[in-house]
Amino acid sequence: MTILHRDDADHIATLTMDAPERLNALSHAMLAALQANLDAIKDDASVRAVILRGTGKAFCAGHDLKEMQSGRQSEDAGAAYFADLFDRCATMMQTIQSIPQPVIAQVHGIATAAGCQLVATCDLAIADDTTRFGVNGVNIGLFCSTPMVALTRNIHRKAAFEMLTTGKFLTASEAADLGLINRAVPADALADETRALAATIAGKLPAAVKTGKSAFYEQAAMTTAEAYAYTGDVMVQNMLRDDTNEGISAFLDKRKPNWD
Amino acid sequence: MTILHRDDADHIATLTMDAPERLNALSHAMLAALQANLDAIKDDASVRAVILRGTGKAFCAGHDLKEMQSGRQSEDAGAAYFADLFDRCATMMQTIQSIPQPVIAQVHGIATAAGCQLVATCDLAIADDTTRFGVNGVNIGLFCSTPMVALTRNIHRKAAFEMLTTGKFLTASEAADLGLINRAVPADALADETRALAATIAGKLPAAVKTGKSAFYEQAAMTTAEAYAYTGDVMVQNMLRDDTNEGISAFLDKRKPNWD
Amino acid sequence: MTILHRDDADHIATLTMDAPERLNALSHAMLAALQANLDAIKDDASVRAVILRGTGKAFCAGHDLKEMQSGRQSEDAGAAYFADLFDRCATMMQTIQSIPQPVIAQVHGIATAAGCQLVATCDLAIADDTTRFGVNGVNIGLFCSTPMVALTRNIHRKAAFEMLTTGKFLTASEAADLGLINRAVPADALADETRALAATIAGKLPAAVKTGKSAFYEQAAMTTAEAYAYTGDVMVQNMLRDDTNEGISAFLDKRKPNWD
Repeated sequence: MTILHRDDADHIATLTMDAPERLNALSHAMLAALQANLDAIKDDASVRAVILRGTGKAFCAGHDLKEMQSGRQSEDAGAAYFADLFDRCATMMQTIQSIPQPVIAQVHGIATAAGCQLVATCDLAIADDTTRFGVNGVNIGLFCSTPMVALTRNIHRKAAFEMLTTGKFLTASEAADLGLINRAVPADALADETRALAATIAGKLPAAVKTGKSAFYEQAAMTTAEAYAYTGDVMVQNMLRDDTNEGISAFLDKRKPNWD
Repeated sequence: MTILHRDDADHIATLTMDAPERLNALSHAMLAALQANLDAIKDDASVRAVILRGTGKAFCAGHDLKEMQSGRQSEDAGAAYFADLFDRCATMMQTIQSIPQPVIAQVHGIATAAGCQLVATCDLAIADDTTRFGVNGVNIGLFCSTPMVALTRNIHRKAAFEMLTTGKFLTASEAADLGLINRAVPADALADETRALAATIAGKLPAAVKTGKSAFYEQAAMTTAEAYAYTGDVMVQNMLRDDTNEGISAFLDKRKPNWD
Repeated sequence: MTILHRDDADHIATLTMDAPERLNALSHAMLAALQANLDAIKDDASVRAVILRGTGKAFCAGHDLKEMQSGRQSEDAGAAYFADLFDRCATMMQTIQSIPQPVIAQVHGIATAAGCQLVATCDLAIADDTTRFGVNGVNIGLFCSTPMVALTRNIHRKAAFEMLTTGKFLTASEAADLGLINRAVPADALADETRALAATIAGKLPAAVKTGKSAFYEQAAMTTAEAYAYTGDVMVQNMLRDDTNEGISAFLDKRKPNWD
């Protein structure tokens, strides 16, 4: 038995968090399993898109609080343990954005604290329209400081500040309006809509998607002038590919590109 | 008689700008009073949330133009006077974000120029649904360059550019959609809604809110990688607090935390 | 015959891209014409606002793919040609934001790839409500990396990522909600609405608008503290102008400013 399953089909890898009794908490084991699977997918050219989902009542309820509390037993009261935990979690989150394949969160039930961070971190997200989203650690005295990094890079300041300081939940509709997810759909359409989005991406030239995803996050941290210098070079490299030459030629000839 | 009142109750400090005949303009005296009160609140552990509001027809109509014009009398035509004024104003605005307690703007009537900047600067804002918001200095030949700093960190570029170059006003509903305020409510619900939001925050662990508010603005200026390194350390320090240990233990035991 | 017309009236310069058979593609000639006209407008004090529009079925469909493909004939397979092309294009885009006069895109039909970048780059944009917007280069194997620079500085991450990796088009209504344009209007109102916006800006003090537009983009790349130090100085210089003195005096005297 494993707490994370990987199923591949049609160039789409689906990662299913399967610890429903813990609401798919990001335990040491779950973080390790996510990291190992993302690392493997990174170098797997057969995968062109990734779906991340969970079984049970929740997409993900954040860190495993019981496990965290057990970390306090050490001489340093857990300082090294917690530092390692948040480091592993941030590394996993950043791996989602650094692998070449787009990662789509398929969200249902609740996505709270680091679970909400997971949604904010994924490149794309579609949610069941009954999902609720929160960064509610403040309710137990633990401000969601790391989830905030991802959240504030998705939604505007005042909405983020209110969620973080009051523990307020967003409905799926509010999350869509604010930009935390791409859209909310009825529960019975969630799997199909997510798969269709993944299939659309899997149908594109993988090298172009890989190039673009990497450039997407790189240029976001630059000034406009720096970003243009950088992406101009990315465009040149993209143009020099044989399969891009074929893609453009096919378009001008009004035929399908021969990319296989 | 004073132009700014402070009233404390239930760990909430309410600052009331009370120069209605000047539409609560940010005169030398008003800026000094705001700065002094914010500085005092900063170190007052009994205060857990702040409400900023105004009496009369307007929340705040920006700088005191009559007073500013009188600054031109000096030998340098006001250069040093204006430099000092904008410096004092920017310091006060940044103090709102640097004090540990969340500051909520309770907005009504109009919020224009530096008054709109005040709304954008507050961590949270609720407005009477008849409020109008503008950065309309361009109409008198004084582009709202300092208000722009706060405005563009709240709403998207094209909406901000239009407001700044045309003097166009936003309705409260538009301000909410764009993220300048958290929400618009009927006039007769404004005080209660604002107080309820302040009370919710005042009910959280003050140390967690303080930590989080500071980290909120610090991490916003960092790259994602820097922000994770920084907030990871913030989380460790948060976890090592006895009251956070108590908060998490109480949650796991399904009881109320004993934080008093 | 020319592919770009300039018509001036009432301090408004209208630039009309007129290569309808190529969907106003940003060919070498079109980029050169846009650059030359923007450079001329930059130093033309009679121009206070610019409208950019196109003839035919499309506002602009991006780069000229046929012309680009012909660049592959050189010994380096086009490397130097493409580098020069993207450099010229990025320079033109940045010139739109660096000239003192606000530039308004008057958009209809389709705005795709670098054509969508053009909309995102203009300071303001109004679109016919049937317009469709896309950064769909991924469909032909050429990820819209340079258009992404402008797009991601206008709309939120998840919507931008979806457009870029799936080629999905936005309706004009979606573009307005996301902040890519200021608003969508019926086709028969497009020219009048755009002209009215340009006229409003042309009615302001040009020196204030020039100062403000420059500061708008400069401060956006700074931390809040840096932005306040910088814009504080901008405000001082603005205050020291005679025409600003007149504007404020006129406001206080409840009369029209004498700016002519």
